[in-house]
Amino acid sequence: MAGFNRRKFIKGAAVGGVGATTVAAPAIAQSNPEIKWRLTTSWPKSLDALHGGALRIGERVAELTDNKFQIQTFAAGELVPGLQVLDAVQNGTVECGHSAMYYYFGKDDTFVFASALPFGLNVRQHNAWLQEGGGMKLLNDFLKAYNVTMFPAGNSNCQMGGWFSKEIKTVEDLKGLKFRMGGFAGKIMQRLGVVPQQIAAGDIYPALEKGTIDGAEWIGPYDDEKLGFVKVAKFYHYPGWWEPSSTLGFICNNDKYNELPKQYKEALASATAEVNSWIANKYDAINPGALKRLVAAGAVLKPFPPEVMDASWKAANDLYKEIGEKNLAFKKMYDSYVAFRADAYLWTSVADFTMDSYMIRYRNAGQL
Amino acid sequence: MAGFNRRKFIKGAAVGGVGATTVAAPAIAQSNPEIKWRLTTSWPKSLDALHGGALRIGERVAELTDNKFQIQTFAAGELVPGLQVLDAVQNGTVECGHSAMYYYFGKDDTFVFASALPFGLNVRQHNAWLQEGGGMKLLNDFLKAYNVTMFPAGNSNCQMGGWFSKEIKTVEDLKGLKFRMGGFAGKIMQRLGVVPQQIAAGDIYPALEKGTIDGAEWIGPYDDEKLGFVKVAKFYHYPGWWEPSSTLGFICNNDKYNELPKQYKEALASATAEVNSWIANKYDAINPGALKRLVAAGAVLKPFPPEVMDASWKAANDLYKEIGEKNLAFKKMYDSYVAFRADAYLWTSVADFTMDSYMIRYRNAGQL
Repeated sequence: MAGFNRRKFIKGAAVGGVGATTVAAPAIAQSNPEIKWRLTTSWPKSLDALHGGALRIGERVAELTDNKFQIQTFAAGELVPGLQVLDAVQNGTVECGHSAMYYYFGKDDTFVFASALPFGLNVRQHNAWLQEGGGMKLLNDFLKAYNVTMFPAGNSNCQMGGWFSKEIKTVEDLKGLKFRMGGFAGKIMQRLGVVPQQIAAGDIYPALEKGTIDGAEWIGPYDDEKLGFVKVAKFYHYPGWWEPSSTLGFICNNDKYNELPKQYKEALASATAEVNSWIANKYDAINPGALKRLVAAGAVLKPFPPEVMDASWKAANDLYKEIGEKNLAFKKMYDSYVAFRADAYLWTSVADFTMDSYMIRYRNAGQL
Repeated sequence: MAGFNRRKFIKGAAVGGVGATTVAAPAIAQSNPEIKWRLTTSWPKSLDALHGGALRIGERVAELTDNKFQIQTFAAGELVPGLQVLDAVQNGTVECGHSAMYYYFGKDDTFVFASALPFGLNVRQHNAWLQEGGGMKLLNDFLKAYNVTMFPAGNSNCQMGGWFSKEIKTVEDLKGLKFRMGGFAGKIMQRLGVVPQQIAAGDIYPALEKGTIDGAEWIGPYDDEKLGFVKVAKFYHYPGWWEPSSTLGFICNNDKYNELPKQYKEALASATAEVNSWIANKYDAINPGALKRLVAAGAVLKPFPPEVMDASWKAANDLYKEIGEKNLAFKKMYDSYVAFRADAYLWTSVADFTMDSYMIRYRNAGQL
């Protein structure tokens, strides 16, 4: 209080009536203002692991800030259509969103590195590249043009290849196949003769039942089970090579983000990091039971044969080369990503993969 | 301000001089007190990924609480010997610690489920069991007797089997082998004829060089490289079946924890969850390069042969059965853990493992 005019201060307080409490208030208000954000997601509430993860971001942020920073979560379509999360956050319709960034490959193929590159990094490798391999830095530099900042915030892990009316035994079986699939990987599938179909979740089952499509991919056992595909297309192929790690992104509008007190920025960083694992753990816990129920209901589990995988691998690499020749941002990200992948798979192949292969051997022998 | 005696209030403020600011102060002090904790670890500073993770817990807690909750981190031996972290936290010498809980299997074998069970869950599965499979609930119930609460806070991931002067080709090669290894898995190794040796980090290299031991396990490529083992024992076997997931634990004294404001408890929960992935990601990023350098320096990478793995698997299961017959806490935890493992490996074997196996195939063909 040195140098402060006490008389004037007290007089001022008296005039204001509530002055005495407002003296200290600005310090509190500045450091812990009440802030309310709206979060829009790409998920219907029925995708409860994904939507639950989005809700959890808000819960954790509130708990970390003594409920001063509140984030209200809206499911796909409540405020904004599920595939317009990026646009809504970019233009400030909402402050933040939860989505899978590869949905926006139509704007720029470079978005895939934020979620999943077909034949790309697995879950652990993707997290390691984002954190330690320069991935987040590259992505957030790229995202500046969209005025958003992303935090990794969940993973549906390696997905399944999907449901097929007939078993896929050869590359020939893919020719003319009408296959419901989302996004970027359709470009690769087309090179193999597949005719990708864009169909919303609720319309997939009737399309399979009527035979207007020959197959469909969705997510994995837990989410697929709810849509009932096993009743109309029993061949359940794996792996979903187009999504070996399906990282989800929390994005926020940069103008809104920059207005946050530092402590709230830190709360967002921690809450999203926490949810990045939380959703992945949840899927790892709920998929096994669903897989068992699906098999009991008649699902025929089949790996894609080597011939199909190899043809897809080649088609994917051809595509990346072509995109990279025209898109410098993609090329820059790709070079970082595949350099990391080569080393990462060396290490994965040694301790982790060998350990897993023995455990799977004991499981297959009925010893687990 | 209804009903408030304005005149008396202003008079009081004038008398106190600084009274106006102290009116609001108690509310701030109560909700955001300055708290300083000390954290002791099991790590020398040279284990920079582990020690760095412990430091990061304190950094994140400070950032989440506007520097009000400060945690000062001490390396092993600075305050407390590295293997006495649990005792120091239990008796309140320090408020918290960072360790691997299986170090304390001498007190009770049940501690292994908090870190690594030989032939147990892999990294993702362990995280899923802790979060969704009831693991953390079981562990913290068990830890009440030690007056500590644990948060998973890092993972050195699946470890290597270690360095051997001669290649291990048969179970016979294990007979009489003097092998430096830490902890619980020594009980299994003994059943295979190994003579486990407890040797501190700095003494391993000279013991290998002089031939007073025949082999040694430490952690993985990055940490092993620093100790120079490749120069004196070139066979680098894998996997470290005794540590398929090496979860680290942040533990805090329950009395101290219960005194924390709710917001600080939440900060601890988030900071440790964040570091749980942070250390794992770090290891996944730094191990590949170290592995390449070790191979260039002459390391001969060799998987343990099936005969050795199978004998170890059998010996491990025999041990668990015997422990479970005498230790109810172990049995309860084991039953939950292995039920989760059977289902988890079903799911792992389908999408993730198949995808990894194709990627490793492309890597081995020089295509990555």
